[in-house]
Amino acid sequence: MIAIDWGTSSFRAFRLGADGQAIARVETSMGILNVSQGGFPATLREAVGAWLAGGETRVLMSGMVGSRQGWIEAPYCPCPAGAAEIAASVCAVPFEDAQIFIVPGLSAQDASGTPEVMRGEETQIIGAGAEGLVCLPGSHAKWVRVADGRITGFETYLSGEAFAAIRSGTILGRMMVDGPPVEAAFDEGLARSDSPGHLLHHLFGVRSLGLFGQLHDSASASYLSGLLIGHEIRAALQPGDHVTLLGAPALCALYARAIGLCGGIAAIGPADCAAAGLARIGESIAWT
Amino acid sequence: MIAIDWGTSSFRAFRLGADGQAIARVETSMGILNVSQGGFPATLREAVGAWLAGGETRVLMSGMVGSRQGWIEAPYCPCPAGAAEIAASVCAVPFEDAQIFIVPGLSAQDASGTPEVMRGEETQIIGAGAEGLVCLPGSHAKWVRVADGRITGFETYLSGEAFAAIRSGTILGRMMVDGPPVEAAFDEGLARSDSPGHLLHHLFGVRSLGLFGQLHDSASASYLSGLLIGHEIRAALQPGDHVTLLGAPALCALYARAIGLCGGIAAIGPADCAAAGLARIGESIAWT
Repeated sequence: MIAIDWGTSSFRAFRLGADGQAIARVETSMGILNVSQGGFPATLREAVGAWLAGGETRVLMSGMVGSRQGWIEAPYCPCPAGAAEIAASVCAVPFEDAQIFIVPGLSAQDASGTPEVMRGEETQIIGAGAEGLVCLPGSHAKWVRVADGRITGFETYLSGEAFAAIRSGTILGRMMVDGPPVEAAFDEGLARSDSPGHLLHHLFGVRSLGLFGQLHDSASASYLSGLLIGHEIRAALQPGDHVTLLGAPALCALYARAIGLCGGIAAIGPADCAAAGLARIGESIAWT
Repeated sequence: MIAIDWGTSSFRAFRLGADGQAIARVETSMGILNVSQGGFPATLREAVGAWLAGGETRVLMSGMVGSRQGWIEAPYCPCPAGAAEIAASVCAVPFEDAQIFIVPGLSAQDASGTPEVMRGEETQIIGAGAEGLVCLPGSHAKWVRVADGRITGFETYLSGEAFAAIRSGTILGRMMVDGPPVEAAFDEGLARSDSPGHLLHHLFGVRSLGLFGQLHDSASASYLSGLLIGHEIRAALQPGDHVTLLGAPALCALYARAIGLCGGIAAIGPADCAAAGLARIGESIAWT
């Protein structure tokens, strides 16, 4: 089987052996934003044509390739869902000389009935074999509950994208000086997130602390990062909760330390679980 | 006396009669951002030179003209402070043929000891004669407590600037279509702010509601506005609180409706109170 993790800005394909382990891989920058309309079949063939010619006839893809902006929109599969439910909901893609399926994203509802969606993270989680509370940090951080291999519900926090927008679009950012992360300032922002008052009020403190010389311009980006991540973590977990982190190693390490400082217990899961997740889902698909 | 409200993007001068009422006014776009370094005396003379030549020798200014980016930095006066404390803390500006003072901004600390600042709002509040809880909505909304004419403390919320940054810098904004405000969507966002979950999670709902066809692209900016203003109001007031609103009439009307929907009782105060505030502070200054 060929397993493909096709995201917004990257394309990664894995040729899997009979045991589900990757025996070859191809990685390109042809994320869906770099593929012109109608260009998906050619992009695929260019990347893995040799493997197809070599006799592979099964292709399973996950990620934003199944979004409205991707190859074909793969409708969301409602939670609770594990490998079996996801395999039963894959979306077939017409293709000449291979059987191609796209893994659906998952949908859920929060306590108020507001919809929630993920696309790609479900494959990572299944690949990691994670259980309990799982966090995938990033622009749109996901906090996911998993029981017996099935994703039962999740919430998304816009922390990463809010950080970038506030940094680039407000007076807070205009005071910031680029430089290496400042751990002490991150920790101060994290501690601030535990003090009385709303995030919208805490944000102004980044400005006022700077005005009074209590926060250096070279440290205020780290403070803002700690403030936002602290708000996210304190909202998403209870003290004493165990959390498995999946994602980019440096970001996972930052979150693990922050979760510990917020009273949680974090473990960093295996990195790069997409191929394993696709292999696991692929086992449950009724290939013809 | 000449009263001047000199802000970031506008300059407004009032010639006050003996009763403190404005008998003439000048308004220009020479806010401090439009004044080159060292250009403040000439800008002032150009705007009100005729009044100076006519015998006015007392000039009192408030607003960002007293900030680090202004004419002279007028150090903050700590709360609690009313007209008397502010008048005792005005900052003298050397000038040939008039006595010029700048009203200081006010500083305070929130419950955690984080500094708070305002500059210009104190003059509006004193001019309005507002008492109790006062809200000045805007990019940096101020919620201010006033007792016996003295400002005892306040908190700033970055709601307005956060709205602009999220709209211009995130995927939420990329989905938004410009158009007139949609009151029903504003109210939905306002209601959402009362549901379980953190603002950073609620923000993602703007995206997911759109994906599921539950929020039109032409309505999502209003929803986001209601969401942020709702979070601010619910954090800043208790149900049953009375609030006086000061500021731009349209924004005050929006806040008054939102405060009512959040269980508070809002009254819109007099518009444009800077001249009255400067007159009131001017009465307490020891002019020579």
